[in-house]
Amino acid sequence: MSKYWSEIAKNIEPYVPGEQPKNKKYIKLNTNENPYPPSPKVINAIEQAANNNLQLYPDPNCDDLRNTLANYYELSSDQVFIGNGSDEVLAFSFMAFFNQGTPILFPDITYSFYEVYAELFKLKYKLIPLDDNFDIPIDSFCIKNGGIVIPNPNAPTTRYMSIECLKKIVECNMESVVIIDEAYIDFGGESLARFVNDYPNLLVVQTLSKSRALAGLRVGFAFGHIDLIEGLNRIKNSINSYTVNRLSLAGAKAAFEDEPYFKNISSKIINTRKKVIPYLKALGFKVLESKTNFLFVSHNKTHAKIIFRELKNDGILVRHFDKPRTHNFLRITIGTDEEMDILINKLKNIISKTYL
Amino acid sequence: MSKYWSEIAKNIEPYVPGEQPKNKKYIKLNTNENPYPPSPKVINAIEQAANNNLQLYPDPNCDDLRNTLANYYELSSDQVFIGNGSDEVLAFSFMAFFNQGTPILFPDITYSFYEVYAELFKLKYKLIPLDDNFDIPIDSFCIKNGGIVIPNPNAPTTRYMSIECLKKIVECNMESVVIIDEAYIDFGGESLARFVNDYPNLLVVQTLSKSRALAGLRVGFAFGHIDLIEGLNRIKNSINSYTVNRLSLAGAKAAFEDEPYFKNISSKIINTRKKVIPYLKALGFKVLESKTNFLFVSHNKTHAKIIFRELKNDGILVRHFDKPRTHNFLRITIGTDEEMDILINKLKNIISKTYL
Repeated sequence: MSKYWSEIAKNIEPYVPGEQPKNKKYIKLNTNENPYPPSPKVINAIEQAANNNLQLYPDPNCDDLRNTLANYYELSSDQVFIGNGSDEVLAFSFMAFFNQGTPILFPDITYSFYEVYAELFKLKYKLIPLDDNFDIPIDSFCIKNGGIVIPNPNAPTTRYMSIECLKKIVECNMESVVIIDEAYIDFGGESLARFVNDYPNLLVVQTLSKSRALAGLRVGFAFGHIDLIEGLNRIKNSINSYTVNRLSLAGAKAAFEDEPYFKNISSKIINTRKKVIPYLKALGFKVLESKTNFLFVSHNKTHAKIIFRELKNDGILVRHFDKPRTHNFLRITIGTDEEMDILINKLKNIISKTYL
Repeated sequence: MSKYWSEIAKNIEPYVPGEQPKNKKYIKLNTNENPYPPSPKVINAIEQAANNNLQLYPDPNCDDLRNTLANYYELSSDQVFIGNGSDEVLAFSFMAFFNQGTPILFPDITYSFYEVYAELFKLKYKLIPLDDNFDIPIDSFCIKNGGIVIPNPNAPTTRYMSIECLKKIVECNMESVVIIDEAYIDFGGESLARFVNDYPNLLVVQTLSKSRALAGLRVGFAFGHIDLIEGLNRIKNSINSYTVNRLSLAGAKAAFEDEPYFKNISSKIINTRKKVIPYLKALGFKVLESKTNFLFVSHNKTHAKIIFRELKNDGILVRHFDKPRTHNFLRITIGTDEEMDILINKLKNIISKTYL
C-alpha cells in the first residue's frame, strides 16, 4: 500500500492469471492454451509484417482485419471491433455499456475477471447462482439490470447453453446490453455472431487465444450492432488509439484465412477430449459435459487441492479455484493425446497413493 | 448516440490520432514516426519469437524485457513497468495515481490525450498556461494538486526543460505523483530515469515508438519507485493480464541490445533537424528550438491551415492543431534528408503562390 495510490489502486483486488512457469518444464494444462502451434501461414504473415514498415503506427481502425472477420462471419466490417485480447475487449465493453445505477448480472461461477472489472469501474453487480448441475438459470437473468455478461460455454464449468436459451435472455433484456463471451465457442458450440443483426443489445466477444492457437499474439474481437461497436471505439480511442500492433493484425488475418488448419487442430482437440473422459471417469472422477478445450472434474474420494499439488510435483500444471462451490474441482486443459496419457497415468498413481 | 452507451461513452470526446493514409502514398510527417526502419536485430528477434510457442500466453510480468531495461537504465527490474504503448502506460498511471478530489495539473498546450484521460476517469484538472515562449512556468506547478503530468520535451511545442527545473517541480510536490512523459527524450534531452531512486513520487514514461523506430510494435514503459510500479501492476492486472505480446517482448528487448543502430538513427535525425531549420527560417517561418524529432513552426504571412491543406494536396502530411494558441502552427516530423528537401521545395512554392 502506498500513499501515492489512488482509491481505485488501493481497493481493487486484481485478477490472478494461471501460472506461466519459466524455470521448470511442465506439461501445461492450466491456462487453456492450444497444444498445437498456429498455422504456418500465420508465422509467414508475421515475418512479412516484421519486414514492412514497423517504424510506422498500425492502422488504428484495423480495417483489413475487420474486413476479414466480417467476411468470415458474414457481417459488415462496422459490426466488428478488434482489441488487444478479449480481456481488453471485455474491459472496454464494461466501460462502454454498463452504468453505475442498476446492478449488472453474471453467474456466480464464471470467469473471475468479470468481478474485477465490476469492482474496477465501480459497477454494482449481482451474482446469479448456477443451478446444481452448474447450468445457467434463464429466468434469473430476466430481472431489471444494468447489463449482463455470460460466457458460452461457461468457464470453468465447461457447460454450454443452446442458442435458443441465450436468445431468450437477450430478448428479455432489450433495455440493456447482453455480452456473450464466446472464448471457447469453437470447440463444439454454435456462435451467436450471426444474430447481431437481429438484436441491437447483443455483443458477442471472441478471442484468437484458444481455438486459433494464438494466445501469445493477443487478439480478441467483438461483434455487435454498429452503435455498440461505435461505443467500444469511443472508449478505445480515449485510452489508446493503437491497441493492436502490426504483427498481430497480420497474424490474425492469416489465421482466419487458413480454415483447413483451424478445423484440423480443433477437431484433434475435440477427439482427445472424447477419448480422455472415459479414463477419468474410470478413475472415479465426475466430469462435466464439456464443449470447451478443457474439463471441469471432481474426484469422488481425493480432494482437488491434493490432486493439484501432486500433479504439480509430478510436472503437470492444472488450475484449482479455491472458491466455495468449486474448491473440490480441477480445471484441466485438453493437451495432445500424449500429454493426456501422461496425465492419466500420473492421476492413477496419485489416486491409488492417497488410498494406501 | 445510443441508448445502450454508458454515461462515460456518451460524454467522452475521444482522442483523434494523426491520419494514417491507406489509399494514397504520402510523405508522412504527421505522426512523429521514425523515418528509418528498426534495427535488423529487432526483425530477427521477432522472426524467432514468431516460431517459438506463439500458442502460449506471453509472460504477464515481462520479466526478460524488464531486466533488459533495468540494466540499460541502471535500475532494478521492479522499478520498471511495461505496457502496450506509452498511451496505455499513461492511461493506467492516471487510474493508479490520480484521485478525483483535487485537480491534476498539466500544460494548456501539450499532448491532447491527457485531457481525454482526465475526462474518461472523471478527474478534475487545471490547465497551466505555458508562457509566451511556450515554456513551462515552474511556480505554477507548485500549488496544491492531485497529480501532475508534463512531457519533456513538450509536444507539440518541442520545448525542453532542464533536469534542474523538473527536479524543482518534483520536489515541491512530494504529496502527489509527478509523471514526466519522455516520449521524445532521446533526440537531445537528458532523461530523469536515473532519479527515480531519489524521488518516491516520480514516474518517468517512455516509448519505443519514436527513437527506437517501433511505432508499429506498441511498447511503452515507465520507471519509478517500486510502490509506483506495484500500483501500475494492480491496475494492469485488473484490466488485461497480458498486455504485451510475445513478438513485442522479443522485439523491444532486441532494440535495447543494439545501441550502435539506435545511436546512428537518432543522430541522423538530429542532424537533419539541424540542417532543415535555416531553410525554414529563410522562408519566413518561426521555428521553436526543438529537442524532438519534429518541429513546431509558424509562418509570418501564410496561415498554418492553408499551408497544411496545400502540403496535403502536394502529397505531404503534417499535423495542424486547430486550438486557440496554436492554430497558426504546424507540427512537422523530421523525415529523411530527402523528404525534408522535398518539403522545403513544396513550402517554397506554397509560400510564393499564396502571395502572387
